[in-house]
Amino acid sequence: MVQKADKLFINAHVLCMDDDFNRYEKGAVAVTGDHIQAVGNMDQLTKEYQAPEVIDCKGKILMPGLVDAHTHVPMNLLRGLGDDLRLDVWLLGFIMPVEREFVSPEFVHLGTSLACAELIRSGVTSFADMYYFEDQVAEATAEAGLRAICCQTILKFPSPDADSYEEALAASETMIKNWKGHPLITPAVAPHAAYTSTVDILGSATALAQKYDVPLHIHIAETSQEVEDCLDEFDMPVVPYLEQFDVFSAKVIAAHCVHIDEREMHKLVRYGVGVAHNPTSNLKLSSGIAKVSRMLELGLNVGIGTDGVSSNNDLDMFEEIRLAALLAKGSSGDPTVVPARTAIAMATSMGAKCIHLGDLTGSLEVGKKADLILVNIDTLHNSPHYRNDPNSVYAQLVYAAKSTDVTDVMVDGKWLMREQKLLTVDIDKLLPQAQSLALEIDRFLVERFQSVYSKLIAIGGAEEQESYEVQIKVKVDDPEKVITKLEESELEILYSRHYHEFDTYFKFEDPKEGWLRYREDEFIDAKGEVENVRYRLTLIGPQREKHFPQDVLLSRSRFIAPAPHSLRFYKEYFKPTDETYIEKDRRRWKVSFRNIEFFINFDRLDEPGLGNFLEVKSRTWSLEDAEKKAQVADDLLKLLGVQSKASETLDYVQIIETQP
Amino acid sequence: MVQKADKLFINAHVLCMDDDFNRYEKGAVAVTGDHIQAVGNMDQLTKEYQAPEVIDCKGKILMPGLVDAHTHVPMNLLRGLGDDLRLDVWLLGFIMPVEREFVSPEFVHLGTSLACAELIRSGVTSFADMYYFEDQVAEATAEAGLRAICCQTILKFPSPDADSYEEALAASETMIKNWKGHPLITPAVAPHAAYTSTVDILGSATALAQKYDVPLHIHIAETSQEVEDCLDEFDMPVVPYLEQFDVFSAKVIAAHCVHIDEREMHKLVRYGVGVAHNPTSNLKLSSGIAKVSRMLELGLNVGIGTDGVSSNNDLDMFEEIRLAALLAKGSSGDPTVVPARTAIAMATSMGAKCIHLGDLTGSLEVGKKADLILVNIDTLHNSPHYRNDPNSVYAQLVYAAKSTDVTDVMVDGKWLMREQKLLTVDIDKLLPQAQSLALEIDRFLVERFQSVYSKLIAIGGAEEQESYEVQIKVKVDDPEKVITKLEESELEILYSRHYHEFDTYFKFEDPKEGWLRYREDEFIDAKGEVENVRYRLTLIGPQREKHFPQDVLLSRSRFIAPAPHSLRFYKEYFKPTDETYIEKDRRRWKVSFRNIEFFINFDRLDEPGLGNFLEVKSRTWSLEDAEKKAQVADDLLKLLGVQSKASETLDYVQIIETQP
Repeated sequence: MVQKADKLFINAHVLCMDDDFNRYEKGAVAVTGDHIQAVGNMDQLTKEYQAPEVIDCKGKILMPGLVDAHTHVPMNLLRGLGDDLRLDVWLLGFIMPVEREFVSPEFVHLGTSLACAELIRSGVTSFADMYYFEDQVAEATAEAGLRAICCQTILKFPSPDADSYEEALAASETMIKNWKGHPLITPAVAPHAAYTSTVDILGSATALAQKYDVPLHIHIAETSQEVEDCLDEFDMPVVPYLEQFDVFSAKVIAAHCVHIDEREMHKLVRYGVGVAHNPTSNLKLSSGIAKVSRMLELGLNVGIGTDGVSSNNDLDMFEEIRLAALLAKGSSGDPTVVPARTAIAMATSMGAKCIHLGDLTGSLEVGKKADLILVNIDTLHNSPHYRNDPNSVYAQLVYAAKSTDVTDVMVDGKWLMREQKLLTVDIDKLLPQAQSLALEIDRFLVERFQSVYSKLIAIGGAEEQESYEVQIKVKVDDPEKVITKLEESELEILYSRHYHEFDTYFKFEDPKEGWLRYREDEFIDAKGEVENVRYRLTLIGPQREKHFPQDVLLSRSRFIAPAPHSLRFYKEYFKPTDETYIEKDRRRWKVSFRNIEFFINFDRLDEPGLGNFLEVKSRTWSLEDAEKKAQVADDLLKLLGVQSKASETLDYVQIIETQP
Repeated sequence: MVQKADKLFINAHVLCMDDDFNRYEKGAVAVTGDHIQAVGNMDQLTKEYQAPEVIDCKGKILMPGLVDAHTHVPMNLLRGLGDDLRLDVWLLGFIMPVEREFVSPEFVHLGTSLACAELIRSGVTSFADMYYFEDQVAEATAEAGLRAICCQTILKFPSPDADSYEEALAASETMIKNWKGHPLITPAVAPHAAYTSTVDILGSATALAQKYDVPLHIHIAETSQEVEDCLDEFDMPVVPYLEQFDVFSAKVIAAHCVHIDEREMHKLVRYGVGVAHNPTSNLKLSSGIAKVSRMLELGLNVGIGTDGVSSNNDLDMFEEIRLAALLAKGSSGDPTVVPARTAIAMATSMGAKCIHLGDLTGSLEVGKKADLILVNIDTLHNSPHYRNDPNSVYAQLVYAAKSTDVTDVMVDGKWLMREQKLLTVDIDKLLPQAQSLALEIDRFLVERFQSVYSKLIAIGGAEEQESYEVQIKVKVDDPEKVITKLEESELEILYSRHYHEFDTYFKFEDPKEGWLRYREDEFIDAKGEVENVRYRLTLIGPQREKHFPQDVLLSRSRFIAPAPHSLRFYKEYFKPTDETYIEKDRRRWKVSFRNIEFFINFDRLDEPGLGNFLEVKSRTWSLEDAEKKAQVADDLLKLLGVQSKASETLDYVQIIETQP
């Protein structure tokens, strides 16, 4: 008896991507409603099924739609915003300041719609997302007709959509309630990473995932730094650290896992965690190369993800599949690992399992959702093709085919693209919106980047403390003698300190920018040991000094900020044209003299070896005040028995620069 | 005064890729004849130049055409013929047997034409080739209108177009004479690699390159194996080895250079050698990752190549450029190396220098050949774009754009593609020819791969020596006693030997295939030292034995061949379903007994530890002869005082298999 179907695909090379890798060179698939009704040889199926819509797939591969196992779709709008940069410079210097300023529900909706269009074009039918305003991701994805795990990000610091993590957790629960049960959208929760979460976040997010039986999406061991920090702080790598808080009791999607060890892999297998491998992003940000072939050997479900376009810079799963296959070979020294069929499985059936949608999608099997694509392999760059090996069709998809060979996409039984025409997203309307937003962001960045000062503000570091000092600097031959004099004097000593200071001065093309100083202050205790280290950044602004008699210098404006990042970060972020390095030993007294507070520094310049200096400094706020303090400072010098005529009106960095 | 030009490109984002990286966001280029007449801002150029053909490039990048610095274009016809295999299995098991059988002038012409079409589509305007019948490569390339260095391959062993290297050298000279001076084709010579060349080849090829002032194209240090072998044999790595023969006095294009050290890099810089980096091929064949960022630091001209499609599997330079940029970051741990602009330079200006065409092509500069392309960056996957950083346009090309965004291609002032329509290659005519050839090759391979025997023949190893033996095998408790008896007997001892044998038996699904034995024979000298090692492959054919009285076995047919490759190679090539390993000590006497030659083997089975056996064997060629020899063998056993009733009718591998 002939059965009825809604749609009948005929004349296709069908790759089922089921457990047995069934394949029909002249195959057919029947679809009814949202699901697959039958898969098999065309001769047989055309006898058994009739449908009002018959799709002739001559010269094409019919296969499950691809699964993008880890992405941040709204970042589509930030494509190419800062490339060839180190992770921290890219994230703190570009992405985060822009996100703070621009990410809104509208931004997220627009970015998601365009990302969906791009994903559809590259043959993706399901993806796992993680971003802010995830409700809008879900909304736009449902409109585009794609299947997605939409995971609301939770961070321990304020984010574009939440001032606190409690707010983000509450938003997650609301989103989960709103979307739970939707045919396309699986709402979920995303504590961003171990190092950006508090213990409370990890616990609460896990509880939420369990309460609603939804996935939990998290970045794990993306960089070696993350692992080192975790080892330093908690004496264990990231996976066991998370295990303590029961995180893996949820259905976890673990993005990256570049730096997990063998034992961590075994743990992930045991907990049924899905690993999302992001080859392009991991190379582009230099995070490293995940040990994918070993993970597969151990039985992990490894999916493939594009990550966000900002670190990719597109959503082309064909590129990711190819790179996953190539990279495993190149990094292992074994060209037989991650063969083409495995790579395609990672992007379909295994990818679906990785994001915990294996029961619904990822393979062409009776009863599964009709999430499928057609790929034209009759093009120039796909020709000729060989069939002496049953695996060659997978190899053709991985090594020769391109995303632009995808002609048709169906999700949940509905067409999203027919003959390369997008049916659910109006990109002609949306692209100009995206470009005008990009122009706004360009303007914002140009403004922020116009001066060293504004770049300092942009990374959120500088507290805007403008300050002036009066300053006398005198070369002294025998500092000990002066110190004895100081200690025996009538001066009220408020405190004394001992530092060893390592200063790097950045110089910029425009001298008006002044210098930016990165200082490492070692606090030396009474026993001469380093008891603490402080990192500070000081912007020594354009020269506005005034010279007083007695060679007192009224110094530049200074903006001081803690320096939480590395010297390397600041170099790459500020891109100075020149650098000067100064290392000195500083003994400092804070004293009160005629009711004015002064710092008295005894500096021994070790690198370069310029000898000993005495500095007397005091903060000031008006010219009148400065003039008065300049006089008192000079008196202070006299009290210490030092002649001010030998004084220098320059900063150390200037003394060095003016030397022959 | 307004000047005349043939063609005027306006409204383009022009990337000159000259030494100063000049860039015009609203730029124009004037072309006259085969060369570039002017480059600059549109406003200015449209005032200065008029042309009958004005090309509006709105939304597009106008840039130099890409340079594919290393490829084997005719291999286009072998796309996807054997993937996910190790280099030797792929080369010896698939590529070489097929090349021996199918590569002809017609094959080369067809493959080149289709490759040119694919190259044009991906924006390539120049390439450096290396293959057989290179005259035909030149012919087809000139027809397609592309610029190329066509390098005739020279190998020390017979190739599809030359029975000897002298023949290949002569063909090279003829080709060079024929093509020297052609506007598009630069003929050249290609000693394939150090390890496939004799000293004579290296010298003669270099002399030829110098005589005609043409480039010399060679593979250098593609695999670590190549370097290890060179160190073992010549006590130096590949670059100094080649330096001895003055090879670098020619204009050398060195493909791969994956495993060269710092000193070798310095040498290549000194000699002005161009290095062709092939990232996909090096990953796919697991050759390794070339130290590109270090090479660039040292000032080497590093170009980017696709290599042949058989190890890629396409000719998509956009993929290669992206991978070159990504891989350098991922492998160095520094995401700032090989930034996008550098990657584009490697594929254009530096690529042209790498193949010694830097004076002609690779940048948009007045007087250079008009080799240029248009790339549409107004597509979905390229949007939006940011311009706050002048380098972002290069980043867009590298990380977001695709080869399918190339819309127009011009070489030597002539259009090869307009609005994605190929103008010089009729692919609709050629593709069916390529596919029918692929079908023929499929049939050839299916036939070759139908049995272990034909696979053995396909790799050229087996000499077709079919042989049978009569064989008695007896377990002996005290072999020394029997040996004494043998030495004291009347037997004429022809010689005696001592071996230690390591045998791996491959078993196949179909028992009719018999076993394939890989044997490592250590020849032990009188002092007990290993004096030599021999590797042999024996196909122990389907059982055809007949049992005689006295438990004499008439053995299987045997094909014996030297085994020049590794055990690993044979495993991956023959893909046995099972393996058995046997290690034994063998003392062998060749004796003459009643005018019949016999081998008498005293075998001590060490792994598995089965004890001592005595074997008596003799070759035979007819049943009658076998029957006679079986009788004599039994008498020989008696002479040695061994009872034949304890004899075994099985091979060792069968004895092991039949054990519990």
